[in-house]
Amino acid sequence: MTGIAEQPTEASHPPEVTLDEVVALCKRRGFIFQSSEIYGGLASTYDYGHYGVQLKNNVKAEWWRAVVQERDDMVALDAAILMHPRTWEASGHLEGFTDPMVDCRTCKLRFRADKLEDSACGRKPSVHPGEHSECDLTEPRQFNLMFETFMGPVRDDAARVYLRPETAQGIFVNFKNVLQFARKKPPFGIAQVGKAFRNEITPGNFIFRTREFEMMEIEYFVRGEDADRWHQQWMEDRMRWHTDLGIRPDHLRLRKHGPDELSHYSSATSDIEYLFPMGWSELEGIANRGDYDLSRHAEFSGEKLEYYDQDKGEAFVPHVIEPSLGADRSLLAFLVDAYDTEEVEGRKRTVLRLHPRLAPVKAAVLPLVSKAGMPERAREIYEQLRARFPAEFDEGGSIGRRYRRQDEIGTPWGITVDGQTMEDGTVTLRDRDSLEQVRVPADDLAERLGAKLAEPWLSPKLG
Amino acid sequence: MTGIAEQPTEASHPPEVTLDEVVALCKRRGFIFQSSEIYGGLASTYDYGHYGVQLKNNVKAEWWRAVVQERDDMVALDAAILMHPRTWEASGHLEGFTDPMVDCRTCKLRFRADKLEDSACGRKPSVHPGEHSECDLTEPRQFNLMFETFMGPVRDDAARVYLRPETAQGIFVNFKNVLQFARKKPPFGIAQVGKAFRNEITPGNFIFRTREFEMMEIEYFVRGEDADRWHQQWMEDRMRWHTDLGIRPDHLRLRKHGPDELSHYSSATSDIEYLFPMGWSELEGIANRGDYDLSRHAEFSGEKLEYYDQDKGEAFVPHVIEPSLGADRSLLAFLVDAYDTEEVEGRKRTVLRLHPRLAPVKAAVLPLVSKAGMPERAREIYEQLRARFPAEFDEGGSIGRRYRRQDEIGTPWGITVDGQTMEDGTVTLRDRDSLEQVRVPADDLAERLGAKLAEPWLSPKLG
Repeated sequence: MTGIAEQPTEASHPPEVTLDEVVALCKRRGFIFQSSEIYGGLASTYDYGHYGVQLKNNVKAEWWRAVVQERDDMVALDAAILMHPRTWEASGHLEGFTDPMVDCRTCKLRFRADKLEDSACGRKPSVHPGEHSECDLTEPRQFNLMFETFMGPVRDDAARVYLRPETAQGIFVNFKNVLQFARKKPPFGIAQVGKAFRNEITPGNFIFRTREFEMMEIEYFVRGEDADRWHQQWMEDRMRWHTDLGIRPDHLRLRKHGPDELSHYSSATSDIEYLFPMGWSELEGIANRGDYDLSRHAEFSGEKLEYYDQDKGEAFVPHVIEPSLGADRSLLAFLVDAYDTEEVEGRKRTVLRLHPRLAPVKAAVLPLVSKAGMPERAREIYEQLRARFPAEFDEGGSIGRRYRRQDEIGTPWGITVDGQTMEDGTVTLRDRDSLEQVRVPADDLAERLGAKLAEPWLSPKLG
Repeated sequence: MTGIAEQPTEASHPPEVTLDEVVALCKRRGFIFQSSEIYGGLASTYDYGHYGVQLKNNVKAEWWRAVVQERDDMVALDAAILMHPRTWEASGHLEGFTDPMVDCRTCKLRFRADKLEDSACGRKPSVHPGEHSECDLTEPRQFNLMFETFMGPVRDDAARVYLRPETAQGIFVNFKNVLQFARKKPPFGIAQVGKAFRNEITPGNFIFRTREFEMMEIEYFVRGEDADRWHQQWMEDRMRWHTDLGIRPDHLRLRKHGPDELSHYSSATSDIEYLFPMGWSELEGIANRGDYDLSRHAEFSGEKLEYYDQDKGEAFVPHVIEPSLGADRSLLAFLVDAYDTEEVEGRKRTVLRLHPRLAPVKAAVLPLVSKAGMPERAREIYEQLRARFPAEFDEGGSIGRRYRRQDEIGTPWGITVDGQTMEDGTVTLRDRDSLEQVRVPADDLAERLGAKLAEPWLSPKLG
């Protein structure tokens, strides 16, 4: 008999998890920290710790596998964050990527003109700006959301550059390069993962909306007449990606943007929304950008940005379908959806029911006690496993406490080395979700777990 | 008989490859493009294309595997690019991360005061600034190399932030967080991959020195008395990483910095230098930063940044060994070292002899001809393989031309589907380096190539 016998006393069900609970777990287990915390933090900026980096890398890797590696029609790109400033004239961001702001001449604070009801007067915080007798607000002025800096030794207009507010433009300005070398014809896409920056006035909700964030974007180029069909197809493909990785289908929905919500470049956008703790919110946007971007860059650069169809002897400007997903936001949805608590033999257990491919650590190897050669044997097994996938070795504290720790970081498999291991070479393999324990030969573990990682996964949340 | 019989007529040897040849291959095969090329480019900024992204991802993944996944003593971190501005006061970058600049009052150009001999006078380019009778240079002034921007709606001193010039500081300010959750004690390290930005006056040599670049940094915390020993150990470990991945040992050397070269934080630095086409140049720096950073951040933040040793009942500020490698620069070294040309049956062949784990594409599946069911069978094989690793299917053009294309992107294995495949299920497996072709059952390919990828690799460059 190894470890502790564990049986959940209640059926697992979607928890009413709060954002605070998720934030607390992230801090406690080193997933995510407030940035520059020793200096009081930098507003709405976060640093990923040990497990957070690995979870985020896994989210990006699964996206990459699905949209690049396992498709024929996709080309990868990684464009620089700093781009030629003409890019933002052509894209419309210099002119259109703005929020209206008002200043109060009395308290000297600045507010978003369209969000006054979410703001507090500087003199009397219980009322909104403009509602106090001393408030003296300016007319709204447009405030651009791009971060601006200067490149080179001289600070003049010619040296002004911007931190990209979206990765998409790096794709559009490379459209011609990709056509030349990649031998693709529409329909085909360009996929990119990278950071973007927006000087948001009201960031918030932990990593949901931050000023520095990472995007996973696809620009998919099609004939204009095929755009609606591909828009529909991408909504289905992307919805399936989230559910294949374990997000509960009833926590996802599609919502079509109204005409007043559309970005300046978009002719139609639908959001995949997730039921975050603060309510239904955008997870992934799937926009039909039409031929806006390629036409604008063609106009501003003087280059022909079109596809010449040799069979039909005609050139056309492709239309663009853009599935755009924030990596941080996707990670938050996976964390929220995986977060579960249940009672096991009278004690509360917190567990992240992450898809095994997303889990930061795949297996933890635990000697039952720190004697009789068990730590040494456990270490050998751990070293074999970590050559294949991320694994941990943990010999400190009671076995129950070590299981709890692995449950909280979402490790799908616990491996216990006990007295019987020393006799017959078998170990206990514990399943994070079912708590089932089976004895298997230690020598088979790498192969067995490797195979499990390659298989489709049936989420226990759907059970 | 399948494909073309291929035999090199000359022994492979280190080529005298020029930077221009590497740049041309990168452009031709879509590894790397000039950024924002349709707008005339942005100086010294580059975008990674399809194969370039994958090569770079592989370089980062191999670094990660070696320094995080396969070690016990390392914790991962991914800190934000934008940090609290006090960070840069504490680190010394606001004061010390500068280059001396002079302005010419006549031609209005600005030059690095310590590199006048590398610059050209604005009036008479054949002479250096200061050598023409009309030159009127100012006294040198210090120019800070950090990119500056403003966060939030108001542009005042309190809102001024910087793009990090190194990832290291994100590690130091999180030292306390990591100690709290990660249960590590010195010696242990924190590893991070991320972008950094330096407003270099003289970037150049393709991706060797750029203003936006990606770093792979380790800060390794040890007792002061152990620092020299760990400095030595890390030089050996890091040197072996480069050679394990195929860099020729005789293209690498260690060089110790002289006292006048040391950064403001360093008490000793050794560079791993690589024999780039422009000569021996820094590939990876391995610095002994002493207790400079933790002590400075403790002073500026008021937090105790030390390790309390419970066994000895004493607290101490760890010293730091820092192996710091540019991902772009490492990729360039791999490209240069892998670049080879040879004559095969009277025709020149260009081949990238990349380590198979670094190669962007692992296997190309090629139907010998586009008929008799071969394309369909080849596509089936390709779809099986790409579920395991990046693979390509290519049916266009002569088989020789398709091999050449794969050679140029460094694909280690070519798989040809021919008439015999349709009869007995075997395919031709061609080795990129030896050009050896063997027949193997198609059904064994995924397993066989997967195993080869996991094995150590013997570089043909050493043969």
